[in-house]
Amino acid sequence: MSKKYVDIETLKYILYDIHKLENLLTRERFQDHNIESLNLFIDSVKEFSDRELYPYFKEMDETPAYHKDGTVIVHPQVQKVMHQSGEMGIIGACFNYEDGGLQIPVSVFQAALYIMDAANNHLPGYPSLTLGAAELIVEFGNKTLKDTYVSKMLSGIWGGTMCLTEPQAGSSLSDIVTKATPTDQGYYKISGQKIFISGGDYQFAENIIHLVLARIDGAPKGTKGISLFVVPKNRPNSNGTLVHNDVMTVADFQKMGQRGYCTTHLGFGDKNDCRGWLVGEEHKGLAQMFLMMNGARIAVGRGAAAIAMAAFRTSLQYANERPQGRKLTADGKKNPSEKPSLIIEHPDVRRMLFLQKAIVEGSLSLVFLASKYQDIIQASSSAEEKEKYHLLLEMIIPIVKTYPSEAGAQAVNNGLQILGGYGFCTDFTLQQYYRDIRIFSLYEGTTGIQSQDLLGRKAIMENGKALELLASEIMKTIVKAEKNENLKIFAITLQEKLGLSKKVLNHLLPFAAKGNYERFLADANLFMEFLSIITVSWLWLEIGLDATIKLQNADQKYSPEFYNSKIETMKFYFSYELPKTESLAISLQNNEAITIKKDIETLL
Amino acid sequence: MSKKYVDIETLKYILYDIHKLENLLTRERFQDHNIESLNLFIDSVKEFSDRELYPYFKEMDETPAYHKDGTVIVHPQVQKVMHQSGEMGIIGACFNYEDGGLQIPVSVFQAALYIMDAANNHLPGYPSLTLGAAELIVEFGNKTLKDTYVSKMLSGIWGGTMCLTEPQAGSSLSDIVTKATPTDQGYYKISGQKIFISGGDYQFAENIIHLVLARIDGAPKGTKGISLFVVPKNRPNSNGTLVHNDVMTVADFQKMGQRGYCTTHLGFGDKNDCRGWLVGEEHKGLAQMFLMMNGARIAVGRGAAAIAMAAFRTSLQYANERPQGRKLTADGKKNPSEKPSLIIEHPDVRRMLFLQKAIVEGSLSLVFLASKYQDIIQASSSAEEKEKYHLLLEMIIPIVKTYPSEAGAQAVNNGLQILGGYGFCTDFTLQQYYRDIRIFSLYEGTTGIQSQDLLGRKAIMENGKALELLASEIMKTIVKAEKNENLKIFAITLQEKLGLSKKVLNHLLPFAAKGNYERFLADANLFMEFLSIITVSWLWLEIGLDATIKLQNADQKYSPEFYNSKIETMKFYFSYELPKTESLAISLQNNEAITIKKDIETLL
Repeated sequence: MSKKYVDIETLKYILYDIHKLENLLTRERFQDHNIESLNLFIDSVKEFSDRELYPYFKEMDETPAYHKDGTVIVHPQVQKVMHQSGEMGIIGACFNYEDGGLQIPVSVFQAALYIMDAANNHLPGYPSLTLGAAELIVEFGNKTLKDTYVSKMLSGIWGGTMCLTEPQAGSSLSDIVTKATPTDQGYYKISGQKIFISGGDYQFAENIIHLVLARIDGAPKGTKGISLFVVPKNRPNSNGTLVHNDVMTVADFQKMGQRGYCTTHLGFGDKNDCRGWLVGEEHKGLAQMFLMMNGARIAVGRGAAAIAMAAFRTSLQYANERPQGRKLTADGKKNPSEKPSLIIEHPDVRRMLFLQKAIVEGSLSLVFLASKYQDIIQASSSAEEKEKYHLLLEMIIPIVKTYPSEAGAQAVNNGLQILGGYGFCTDFTLQQYYRDIRIFSLYEGTTGIQSQDLLGRKAIMENGKALELLASEIMKTIVKAEKNENLKIFAITLQEKLGLSKKVLNHLLPFAAKGNYERFLADANLFMEFLSIITVSWLWLEIGLDATIKLQNADQKYSPEFYNSKIETMKFYFSYELPKTESLAISLQNNEAITIKKDIETLL
Repeated sequence: MSKKYVDIETLKYILYDIHKLENLLTRERFQDHNIESLNLFIDSVKEFSDRELYPYFKEMDETPAYHKDGTVIVHPQVQKVMHQSGEMGIIGACFNYEDGGLQIPVSVFQAALYIMDAANNHLPGYPSLTLGAAELIVEFGNKTLKDTYVSKMLSGIWGGTMCLTEPQAGSSLSDIVTKATPTDQGYYKISGQKIFISGGDYQFAENIIHLVLARIDGAPKGTKGISLFVVPKNRPNSNGTLVHNDVMTVADFQKMGQRGYCTTHLGFGDKNDCRGWLVGEEHKGLAQMFLMMNGARIAVGRGAAAIAMAAFRTSLQYANERPQGRKLTADGKKNPSEKPSLIIEHPDVRRMLFLQKAIVEGSLSLVFLASKYQDIIQASSSAEEKEKYHLLLEMIIPIVKTYPSEAGAQAVNNGLQILGGYGFCTDFTLQQYYRDIRIFSLYEGTTGIQSQDLLGRKAIMENGKALELLASEIMKTIVKAEKNENLKIFAITLQEKLGLSKKVLNHLLPFAAKGNYERFLADANLFMEFLSIITVSWLWLEIGLDATIKLQNADQKYSPEFYNSKIETMKFYFSYELPKTESLAISLQNNEAITIKKDIETLL
């Protein structure tokens, strides 16, 4: 395994220097924090990850979670990390003081979780889902629910899950059939099946609090008839003891990767004794759940970004240590008497390393961008400001979820390739990163679903206002960069791409206007890739601009090599990734409509 | 598992109708064969694969080969498939009658192996490497070597391997240090270590014949000092018994995929009693080995193409059976009262299916193209014709190895995505295809090495003659297609891309002319992708042209749906894949030279 699974220097540079965490700290919500104390928090999580997460990364893959006698057996480290995440205040970091939290900025929390994900992505999901479930209770639950569950969850003693998917419905939440039957006791009787429940059960859990989407008897069809319930594995009695709540662990799913993070199939109410408590209003469950989904989707992007980081650092270390092959001489041959080069000297290996670095650090910046937006929304007292950042956040959420997952997988693929045959062998961790990261473009909404969301909802919401806001944020950086001779050409190129995006939308939007949504959204995945690359180019231009100015000003915070490395990686992204928008634009404007089903099936 | 792992109808269509196998059969070498008998051969291999390969596909992944007490334990099916491949004449299919072969066209042999690869890619490597090793002995070995080894190998009783890679050298064959010390007994004493040896040992093998690259004492440095040896695991005594030849199985490599196909670490001459027999001339080993490497590289492309086929068929079946989601209505919403659609109705799922189909069938055509060239070379009596097809073959070999491996992995990735969360679960085979195919861009020369070969050797060989020949083959199809109104636009587009490829080369070649080979080859991988897409677009234009004409002529051999399906897939390739050449061309012509190492390291 690599000595260094995360580049903390770059993480802090992007958090502090690019996204300017300090500016956030002037807000009242964060008044008790300063850069030093937050830095200490990040460093303590790094130390925790070094000690309790990273050493178990390979072992957890080799000893996957499994189902036995109605429970799921996970690696003992799950228990330790849950408890310590509670003790260290990681789970409750961003919660309000009154709810038992620390009011730490989301950006800093995400930095911490990123480090944990990079160290061992099989573990952070347990505390992370728990806080997501607790967040829903805090946001929409009544006082009794809050008092009963939240503190146990934030302390890591009880786990939490989100139960959306059902076998027959898959991603189509409007087809959910899990039933909630009202009683006159203040609770509902729950019955149904939920699958793909991450962290749904494990032998150490004193209790697991499931946030379950279900349909109250007589509710309208579709997504408008879905309500949200707290359904504990064990329900607390009035005397504080726990009573089994008829939640059964039917099975677990054995997976290609992320094998230490259990995925379960849960059955509710098999013995007609499963009680659920309504959270918030009837039939509003999906909207409520989606409040948490934003956080969950950022978490997915963050996890994928972190895995790609760890894979990059591992392949970079290998490339710096492995001698093989030689530089080509002027006659295009190699001189066998020469000492072999380190493989990092070979342009093709460097290309694969730069590609990884560009995707990895670009993804990291994307995650911090979303977190910054979340922080501003949460800390702002201005309705106008809240609205602006709310729109910006909604706009980029599907990109933050998807780009690190898809491009991150491509990055890891290149990391594996750098190790040659060894990359395919289980003695090395690259193959594990390759398997682990593959789930990120599936869960919390597949890439297809994110893309439909991006083009079909976000790009057209409020008559395209969110997209305009994003474009004007991008323009701010372009205007600044244009003034710097070294960056002018990159600024102009990016501005051209903004123009291209308008052209593409002008081709697509008329289909929606004419009610042909199928055609409008047919190539939403390509649009996702297109807009993601433009967004990440913008983030790289920001980094390139900062590094260029600091270098020109002989700023000493980081080394000249560090700044140069950022500038070179920006150039790489503009030379190798941004041009992809050209071919995507061609495909997006094609008139064949090949993927729309015709009367006669052509897919044989 | 899918009911149908291979689309035999398409396989035969591409072999018979597109590559016109019948034309080959007029050659003297193939005079004993006709379409009916060869069809029978293919069908018998299909039946064999249904029975002896496909049923063990998942099981072999779940019970990987492993090293124990100096030998490697593989699945019992290895033995059965080796023997039956011998009995059925598969191993010796293409060999001359005089060497115990059947003089079946390579094209037909590749069709057979493709079926086996699609059924279970963990098995065909055993017979396939055996025939490669036998081929070297037949081609370069003396009569004694031939008499001793070939018939046992072609009958599948003895296995064969290629031993190139060493731990310290990796892909850099010029750094091979395995020693061959001459004796006065007609053999050499061999000592050294070889790694990543596929099929290097297994408990059932009565004998395994290793074809080993080694350096005779005092040989020149580099690749010019490498010789080729037959080194049997057990050496046959004069009385026919076998004596242990001091070949030790030191370890095996546990891999992420293709786990039933063992990968071994062999030690030669640990007890100073390992004998090797020189094959061909001293110091010519690498050139000889590379004769077989062409076959091995086509085999890799074929295997990857076949895995992608099986994954495509599996995801297609799933998409045809799984209901989920609904068509969008004119207001962009879904009507929950409507019955869910099959997912094959959704444009995005169709896009992923078409992408797979386009890559899979394009790759298949590419493999048959290379096989056809091999057949013509082998069967031709005209030196000029041989030379032409030799150049064409050399030109496309790196593409045939790489495109199915790289694009095939991308295809499988899309197949997995179609299954959603189930795609990631081990109950389904998509995740196995995903893991299995990943090795294909690593072994027999990584994509990096193939790309250096393509641009650094093949594109400039004989002053670019091979590339010109390929372009003129492509032009032949363009000229024909231009005459058909339905295809004119595709023909023109492809011709433009040929023009673009000249532009790209005009940018790159001056670097070589100035002796700056490092710069010339820095983006060879991008050039590989660029030229691969153009080549496969050509093959799709050929298919589209044939299908269009047959449809216009109301040809009854296949259904109108079948022909339409081919035409639609061609259109898909031209709309979604061919445009990628535009962005690749931009990157290939960028002037930043970012991946060339500068004085100060920028990759931190």
